[in-house]
Amino acid sequence: MTTDRLERARAAMADADVDALLIGPSADLRYLVGYHALPLERLTMLVVPRDGEAVLVAPELEAPRAQASGASDLADLRTFGETDDPIALVTDALGPAATGRLAVSDRLWAGFLLALQRVTPQADYVAGSTVMRTLRLIKSAEEIAALEAVGAAIDAVHAQVPALLRPGRTEAEVGRDIAERILIDHDEVNFVIVASGPNGASPHHETGDRVIEAGEPIVVDIGGTRAGYCSDVTRNYVIGTPSPDYAQLHRVLEEAQQRAVDAVRPGVSAASIDAVARDHLEAAGYGAYFVHRTGHGIGVEEHEEPWIVAGNELELAPGMAFSVEPGIYVPDRHGARIEDIVVVTDDGVAPVNHRPHELCVVDGP
Amino acid sequence: MTTDRLERARAAMADADVDALLIGPSADLRYLVGYHALPLERLTMLVVPRDGEAVLVAPELEAPRAQASGASDLADLRTFGETDDPIALVTDALGPAATGRLAVSDRLWAGFLLALQRVTPQADYVAGSTVMRTLRLIKSAEEIAALEAVGAAIDAVHAQVPALLRPGRTEAEVGRDIAERILIDHDEVNFVIVASGPNGASPHHETGDRVIEAGEPIVVDIGGTRAGYCSDVTRNYVIGTPSPDYAQLHRVLEEAQQRAVDAVRPGVSAASIDAVARDHLEAAGYGAYFVHRTGHGIGVEEHEEPWIVAGNELELAPGMAFSVEPGIYVPDRHGARIEDIVVVTDDGVAPVNHRPHELCVVDGP
Repeated sequence: MTTDRLERARAAMADADVDALLIGPSADLRYLVGYHALPLERLTMLVVPRDGEAVLVAPELEAPRAQASGASDLADLRTFGETDDPIALVTDALGPAATGRLAVSDRLWAGFLLALQRVTPQADYVAGSTVMRTLRLIKSAEEIAALEAVGAAIDAVHAQVPALLRPGRTEAEVGRDIAERILIDHDEVNFVIVASGPNGASPHHETGDRVIEAGEPIVVDIGGTRAGYCSDVTRNYVIGTPSPDYAQLHRVLEEAQQRAVDAVRPGVSAASIDAVARDHLEAAGYGAYFVHRTGHGIGVEEHEEPWIVAGNELELAPGMAFSVEPGIYVPDRHGARIEDIVVVTDDGVAPVNHRPHELCVVDGP
Repeated sequence: MTTDRLERARAAMADADVDALLIGPSADLRYLVGYHALPLERLTMLVVPRDGEAVLVAPELEAPRAQASGASDLADLRTFGETDDPIALVTDALGPAATGRLAVSDRLWAGFLLALQRVTPQADYVAGSTVMRTLRLIKSAEEIAALEAVGAAIDAVHAQVPALLRPGRTEAEVGRDIAERILIDHDEVNFVIVASGPNGASPHHETGDRVIEAGEPIVVDIGGTRAGYCSDVTRNYVIGTPSPDYAQLHRVLEEAQQRAVDAVRPGVSAASIDAVARDHLEAAGYGAYFVHRTGHGIGVEEHEEPWIVAGNELELAPGMAFSVEPGIYVPDRHGARIEDIVVVTDDGVAPVNHRPHELCVVDGP
């Protein structure tokens, strides 16, 4: 990692009239200096004054990890011992910026922000995304290549899911097998959703002790991190024969997802993509069952901007990457979601995932 | 879960002159209402006015999980759709408390706190731990039983570690096998540290591609969550014969850890336990290599109060639970740490972990 991203951050700070950026353990920190800091009760904070040297405040015992990450080549590493006050190191690093406009990373813990606010009563705090969103929203060619690589890795896991599905196995058993396979070509498992039968109607059900039975649909939504970038793909499976109404629901969902993907191109709004999927489901009578937005951005974080949601008039631009994932959730019965990650190109869209969208029918017992 | 903990929270709020408690996805939320909310960019927040009904603000699509947790029996669940403003729901639930003293959970994301501060300019925000620490610091008999159960579960994993250690395997391979075994009797893996040779000198090294070799020490620090409570135990292993200086270092560390455990009883300070371990290591010439505090509390969270650290004059009391984990870290060479969880009893201490403390020598090739 080079100082390039820190320089772009300083330019964004100038645009946003921000005097210093304060970044805790987060995707922002990984993005800026490549350091995957643990979220500890001991503060880690990158301080980037608009004018002045970047400083990384870190607990002494994290120094080896901070150095190994290379972050200490980009920022002056200043460590504190178990009985020292890290907040004082942050205000030192801020210098005169301590009375200015400070952008603090959106996911910093409130306890740290409150401690900072106590000792900098004149500062005006704003969300770090004020600065960071402009950087992270448009992916570089290198970042797109990373999303394609991690996309291929998760596609390869979905290809193995049919072999793991047998009546009598629990969601949790299948989930563990999937997690193991994710790790073959990812560094980390981010989440594993295996939602069978009525559990599929809860969009964020993870896995449980429910025994999977033949004939019922199974929503499998999985993702991990590889070389710092995230994957996230959902497909629907059934062992044996699906019910006719589920098969019909799934066909409509496939159409909605494809239409939304096809609508992606530079210059249209994020909201318009949501509307394409939603309108199609509404016209088919499933509108009330589509209870979430159509997608979320993805990159160093599994959920980030742009949000593909009604009301978001953000114009899509080349280099934006996000999920397109309409779903249909029929309470107490079943659910379905189809999700791929796509990247906006100069004149349209390129999905980074390539598994078939159809309901995947696995041979029955 | 009953309303008992919410009532105790209200009593603690009265003591701390807090008008309302605002709890985001966190161990505090699990502790109070049993809901393991996902940390999402969509706000989930439990609002507990000192006088008035508890309200759980949650995204519509999380409603099934919130209901399944039972939290909606303890607090009025109010959901918001993808284009609604959750902050307005929070201020509604606050009512007149919105101009008072508000305790916000320490780990709430700063972005949410900044959004709240913007619409409640008269409020005085303090850290949620002001209220929560008094509740969580003293474990009930039921909580101690949970810590013992999860302690036995992680002891059982350590018992299997020798069989996983062979020269030529990487830390990451061993780590994956350990993670699988943790899941046998835990619901979640919290962390797996397998630090071989010089990697052992970094207290928070996780696992890597380093190949383990005969004769070098391996620090194995592992933990998970079972029924909402956490385990955390460290032991040191070596394949074949350890170097004489490492064997000596380990013997001194065993003594330091045992002395610190033996010093635990009601009425002594947290700092005094740290001093016992530190003084012993210093007397033996290892003082400079013990770079962290002696321990941390544990419960619904893997790191919580009480901190066993110099300067913390908190008096230990029956029901407090924490790790005792001195370590010796010789940069670029090797490291060792011995860690058990202990509970303060009416007249002394009871460890919840029972594996032998000695350096575990695994048969060589």
